[in-house]
Amino acid sequence: LKELRQISVIGLGLLGASLTLAVSRLLGGVKAVGYSHRRSTREKARAMGIAHEVKDDILDAVRDADIVVLATPICTFEEIMGCIASSLRPGCIVTDVGSTKSLPHKWAAKTLPKNVHFVGSHPIAGSEQRGAEFGRDDLFTNANCILTRTRTTNAAALKRVRKLWHDLGCRVSIMAPAEHDRLLANISHLPHVTAAALVNASSPRDMLMAGRGFIDTSRVASGPANIWADILITNGPNICRGIERLSGELEKLKKAIRKNDERQIEKLLDSARSKRARLIQHKLKHREILS
Amino acid sequence: LKELRQISVIGLGLLGASLTLAVSRLLGGVKAVGYSHRRSTREKARAMGIAHEVKDDILDAVRDADIVVLATPICTFEEIMGCIASSLRPGCIVTDVGSTKSLPHKWAAKTLPKNVHFVGSHPIAGSEQRGAEFGRDDLFTNANCILTRTRTTNAAALKRVRKLWHDLGCRVSIMAPAEHDRLLANISHLPHVTAAALVNASSPRDMLMAGRGFIDTSRVASGPANIWADILITNGPNICRGIERLSGELEKLKKAIRKNDERQIEKLLDSARSKRARLIQHKLKHREILS
Repeated sequence: LKELRQISVIGLGLLGASLTLAVSRLLGGVKAVGYSHRRSTREKARAMGIAHEVKDDILDAVRDADIVVLATPICTFEEIMGCIASSLRPGCIVTDVGSTKSLPHKWAAKTLPKNVHFVGSHPIAGSEQRGAEFGRDDLFTNANCILTRTRTTNAAALKRVRKLWHDLGCRVSIMAPAEHDRLLANISHLPHVTAAALVNASSPRDMLMAGRGFIDTSRVASGPANIWADILITNGPNICRGIERLSGELEKLKKAIRKNDERQIEKLLDSARSKRARLIQHKLKHREILS
Repeated sequence: LKELRQISVIGLGLLGASLTLAVSRLLGGVKAVGYSHRRSTREKARAMGIAHEVKDDILDAVRDADIVVLATPICTFEEIMGCIASSLRPGCIVTDVGSTKSLPHKWAAKTLPKNVHFVGSHPIAGSEQRGAEFGRDDLFTNANCILTRTRTTNAAALKRVRKLWHDLGCRVSIMAPAEHDRLLANISHLPHVTAAALVNASSPRDMLMAGRGFIDTSRVASGPANIWADILITNGPNICRGIERLSGELEKLKKAIRKNDERQIEKLLDSARSKRARLIQHKLKHREILS
């Protein structure tokens, strides 16, 4: 594998800042460069020392990079790729941390020069918080990270990106963009839509009496609306199918409740309980969560 | 207020065990007596020392009680009330920790002697865990506790129960059973149904890649199925209305996604985000959650 000397991260929100922090701490000898289009974010990032260098100009930021990581809202990717294309070194790898992958691959194929390699990355980590101030150098420790490849993906670049996330503490898997987007619709985008719908279905007055159940069930709905709107818009069909499946399950429960069918209610609840128990067992075993 | 000498708790699961522990720790001079119909639970409770005394016989457990607290699944209340009715002292107060209130009030009116007073209690505390081993003496600290009263509720008994929960660290409010059941359907029972439906809509294989978002959104679905079936069955109409409201919100999001209407998607997500932000502010201010 080619030696890694510089990683440049575009966008210094929760994920971007965590990435520059993790690179600085875990990858000896690799320079972590950051860029944000907001002056205030750049100043905050410098004051916090989250990267070796924070650049004022995006082209300066990417010029010497071996790997450029896009950590901005997905719908900015195409424009950013177009903007940086001619400033990237031959052999440079562009990757990202976005939550959908089909469109980014299309944009990269359309926009990036032939001697620059795109690989999709999706570290499944983060929280409902936003901003560099929530960056953590251990955000990726024991996280799953999905890499996406197409038939034209450069094998060495894929290997290089896999090593990067592995070195940052992730369990890496590789799949096609379409499979990634189907999977993530189910385990991440649908829960987000569900949480938002639950809050929107609740009156602010009632919510004041809510306990931990409501608070946890709705947590992800506190995520940044613009970032999530980009995710939903770039994975529409998969998410709509998920909403239909969820509505079907809600309908099943409603019918059982309407019919006072305690056995069927208990069966549906117990199916969820035991499925989730297996999930938690798996997560504990792989140290993705702590007991 | 009449002096409190003995509280007897029927059912030693998470809530019952936490209650005997909290009474023992926080209410000096009050004897905490526990009972479970399961021998293994009684033995576990004795070994853990969660109450001053654990009785083998339910009538022995309630005979000298000033307050009897039902901490069993709701659908057992009517039978237990009938069983203990003739062993209760005149002036004894019966209350509970159940999550629905309309039916318990009806059962109490039908079953308990005139000289025994029923007040509904619902400390909004707990978790998805079950069993005495998860009991915590601080479970009720800073929790909301809703008391329910009807036109016939004895005022002194209500006052006595209010002081009990206040002394255990709760913020107490009082309402009619129907209002309680409407409110709880929205802030607790609907989130439970939602979480269960979300898990049931997901494939076990996909779930293995889930991150914290899915795990938190689905947490309450790990709650005991029999206890939750009783809750859903005793609050059916309110929960069905909630499911319809939620389905309507999901439909709104689906339509916006289908139409690629980024502005509408962002508006819906941002409405949820800001509503939840106000909720979290309120909870932090009242120390119901920690930052």
